[in-house]
Formats: sequence, structure tokens, C-alpha cells
Amino acid sequence: MVLFRRLLGDVLRPRRLDPGRTLRQLGADARVSLGYMSEIERGQKEASSELLAAICSALDVPLSEILSDVADAVALEETAMSVRLEQVDIGSEALAVTPVRRRPNGDVVASAA
Amino acid sequence: MVLFRRLLGDVLRPRRLDPGRTLRQLGADARVSLGYMSEIERGQKEASSELLAAICSALDVPLSEILSDVADAVALEETAMSVRLEQVDIGSEALAVTPVRRRPNGDVVASAA
Repeated sequence: MVLFRRLLGDVLRPRRLDPGRTLRQLGADARVSLGYMSEIERGQKEASSELLAAICSALDVPLSEILSDVADAVALEETAMSVRLEQVDIGSEALAVTPVRRRPNGDVVASAA
Repeated sequence: MVLFRRLLGDVLRPRRLDPGRTLRQLGADARVSLGYMSEIERGQKEASSELLAAICSALDVPLSEILSDVADAVALEETAMSVRLEQVDIGSEALAVTPVRRRPNGDVVASAA
């Protein structure tokens, strides 16, 4: 399952680090504790809409830009997930059509095509 | 302040209504109560990342598409807000440079330029 808060954290961290700000500095600007700010960046806590707006304001980045970046990151994960699911499908199909033969000792083995 | 949850609600509602689903149906599919689903659509309650994923899955819309739509809606509000702020700026500036004169009775009036 692709989780909004995890990719939000992934998007927020480089925005903070680019001008070399600490979690403590950003937390102070956004009026949120260092611990909570850290959990948001690690995708472990949800940020309320008010807090998200305050963080964007402290980062001096429009909320729309952050959300657009999160949407792109989510789209990448969705694509990666669907590719993995397709591979699983192809894998099961390949297994289903592989001809098998039985060895004299009873073992079932895939025969060369 | 532009709030994520309000614009999320604005984006979710037409997605539910397009195939003519009720709040009750969507709530049942996403395993959330009718009341909570209604509050999310009205932008009054935050949806956790897990719930947001469940709602998108019930709507059969990728989360990335919903987030991209929300980002666009947020961008529109941000533009509208900055235009309103500019109008306020222009308004104060105009007031500051308007020459004034005092009538014989003491009233201050803006003089014609």
C-alpha cells in the first residue's frame, strides 16, 4: 500500500536539507517539536493540514509544489508496484505452461521445451 | 491558509458522484463510517494515509491522481490568494499617494489628481 505520509516525508527532507536547516530550526519555525518533525519526515506520523501548511510556510515552498512532488513520488511507486504484480503474473503463467515429466523414481521435473 | 483536507474533500466528492455512489456505499467499500466519510468530503476531518489509500482503492482511482488533482486545486487557491494580497498592496499604495486637501469645515477629502 502506497502511504501518503511516507512519501510526504521523503519530499520534505531534501527541502529542509537543501538550505542546510536542522530539524530543530524547521520545527521552531513551524511551531512543532523536534521529535514530531522528525517523525513526520520519517513518515511515521501524520501531519494535520494546519501543520502541513505551517511546515510549507517555514520551508518557504507553496503547499501545491509539495503536493505535486508527493503525487509524482506516489505515481512512481504505483508504477513500480504494478510492474512487480505483472512479474508475479508472468511467473505463475510460466509455471502453469511448463511441461513436466516424471522420473523413474517418481520425482516430477520440468522437461526441456 | 490553504488546507489540504478541504481541497481533498472537494476532489473526492465528484469522484464518488460521477458513478452515482452514495456516501454509504463508498464508506462500506473503504471500511469507514458514513459520518466520517461525510466529514472527510466536507474537509472537516483528516483522513489517515491508510484511510486515504482505502478510499482511493474503493473509488478505483490511483492515489497519485487524487493528489495531483488536489495539488492543482491548491495551486488555484494560492494564486487567488496572492492576487487578493496584491490588490490589498495596490490599495494601500494608492491611499498613500492620494493627495488630500482639507475643506473649510475641517473634513479631509481626496483631491482630484
